[in-house]
Amino acid sequence: MNSAELFSNILRKKSFLCVGLDTEPEKLPSCVKNNHDPVFEFNRRIIDATAQYTVAFKPNFAFYECQGSRGWNSLKKSVEYIKEYYPDIFIIADAKRGDIGNTSKMYAKAVFDDMPFDAVTVAPYMGEDSVTPFLSYAGKWAIILALTSNKGADDFQYHTAINERLFEKVLNVSQKWGTPDNIMYVIGATRAEMLTDVRKIVPDHFLLVPGVGAQGGSLAEVAKYGMNGKCGLLVNSSRGIIFADGSNDFDLMAGKKARELQEEMSVYLGEHFQSLL
Amino acid sequence: MNSAELFSNILRKKSFLCVGLDTEPEKLPSCVKNNHDPVFEFNRRIIDATAQYTVAFKPNFAFYECQGSRGWNSLKKSVEYIKEYYPDIFIIADAKRGDIGNTSKMYAKAVFDDMPFDAVTVAPYMGEDSVTPFLSYAGKWAIILALTSNKGADDFQYHTAINERLFEKVLNVSQKWGTPDNIMYVIGATRAEMLTDVRKIVPDHFLLVPGVGAQGGSLAEVAKYGMNGKCGLLVNSSRGIIFADGSNDFDLMAGKKARELQEEMSVYLGEHFQSLL
Repeated sequence: MNSAELFSNILRKKSFLCVGLDTEPEKLPSCVKNNHDPVFEFNRRIIDATAQYTVAFKPNFAFYECQGSRGWNSLKKSVEYIKEYYPDIFIIADAKRGDIGNTSKMYAKAVFDDMPFDAVTVAPYMGEDSVTPFLSYAGKWAIILALTSNKGADDFQYHTAINERLFEKVLNVSQKWGTPDNIMYVIGATRAEMLTDVRKIVPDHFLLVPGVGAQGGSLAEVAKYGMNGKCGLLVNSSRGIIFADGSNDFDLMAGKKARELQEEMSVYLGEHFQSLL
Repeated sequence: MNSAELFSNILRKKSFLCVGLDTEPEKLPSCVKNNHDPVFEFNRRIIDATAQYTVAFKPNFAFYECQGSRGWNSLKKSVEYIKEYYPDIFIIADAKRGDIGNTSKMYAKAVFDDMPFDAVTVAPYMGEDSVTPFLSYAGKWAIILALTSNKGADDFQYHTAINERLFEKVLNVSQKWGTPDNIMYVIGATRAEMLTDVRKIVPDHFLLVPGVGAQGGSLAEVAKYGMNGKCGLLVNSSRGIIFADGSNDFDLMAGKKARELQEEMSVYLGEHFQSLL
């Protein structure tokens, strides 16, 4: 999927929502626990309930790996389910991978050959040859961590040399490794005003914005400071949607929460792209 | 395992070798390909052939994940095999993980609860709360990327502010998150002279040094610049050992290569710790 197709999906669905499938096994509602694959069953119902409001799904690998190969199977089944029933939805492997070139190539194989992901999140610390193997797949994306939404972001990402903070250097340097059609950036929503600084360096790239919802970021501010001429935003919510309700009807509440975010997004999209909607 | 136990193993085996199990499925010798689990069978023979010369094994996750849940099973079997037959060998999950606290906790569960690893490599970009969940397991370690051995290390790790390069800041800041008994650092061997700078900041920590062998680093220089009063070094070789020979006797050649490195290490250990050996 290229950026024009993604933008077209955003306009059609009036949404730039990404639903995070952070499916923590211990948090599953009791009604799915007797299923032979509770994690997949939970995901399937969340996917069906939220697919009409979302343009992207983002399983976070940690929540699958903690169950070993069983978790890996649930993950693969979930991604294949999305690809089969909702082929226009962008699927992000939130895996924060990155290693020497020879090794990153194998990580790319795992998410792009063995599973049908469209994109993978990548930690930039090891530099160019740790990222470029993910860019060699046509139509696939690397989503590079730039400014993350957690407290620890302060520890290194603002490290400043000659007026250039580390996350700005990451943006400046890494945009040369690919194009706005195969690189996105993770920019945490918890400091939305930073989006102004980010947009000065990468005006055209899509930004994957976590931290709205449970982590406390404001969607209005993200839209205000981050939106560009092709929307350029995927805003993720995980726990705020998928674990909003622990009852047998958890999927109905997930759909409701996703729809609420979609409706708010629809307003912001209307302000920017009235003639296109 | 704490650092005193690790040092005692190093003295007893006269080796600070770590064998990297970067078991790329496509590179397996034909003699193991008909086994029902070729990756595990290959690893088992490499482990048996090299265990007497090594104090650590380090499977790199990428080479297992590229085969999905099947690869994850081979990985788990390999780690459990080491733990059962060679319980004094330190096992490193080379996974370069790291995410927001809530998520890193799940990655820690995967390597420390679901599998019996002793340590995991962690990318520091997301800061303190991305690393500390790995430190809450008694006797387990986080091995933080500081200065890596690949070309891309130049892109960000030398980013300099007020005479402090980023990797130095990583060392300065992160050593406060734990102790020399639960934090190690990855320091690439391809620039061994950097070890002098590293040792000024972290004199007491163990360093995991990749890049000797296929990546071209010199063991003599690593020992010269990096060794401290408790050895403080684990030097890894992966491809240079496990894929040294593609014949049916691949394990004999792996044992030979491991022994050669061990014998060289024995000399350097003798120079530093003659009275203890």
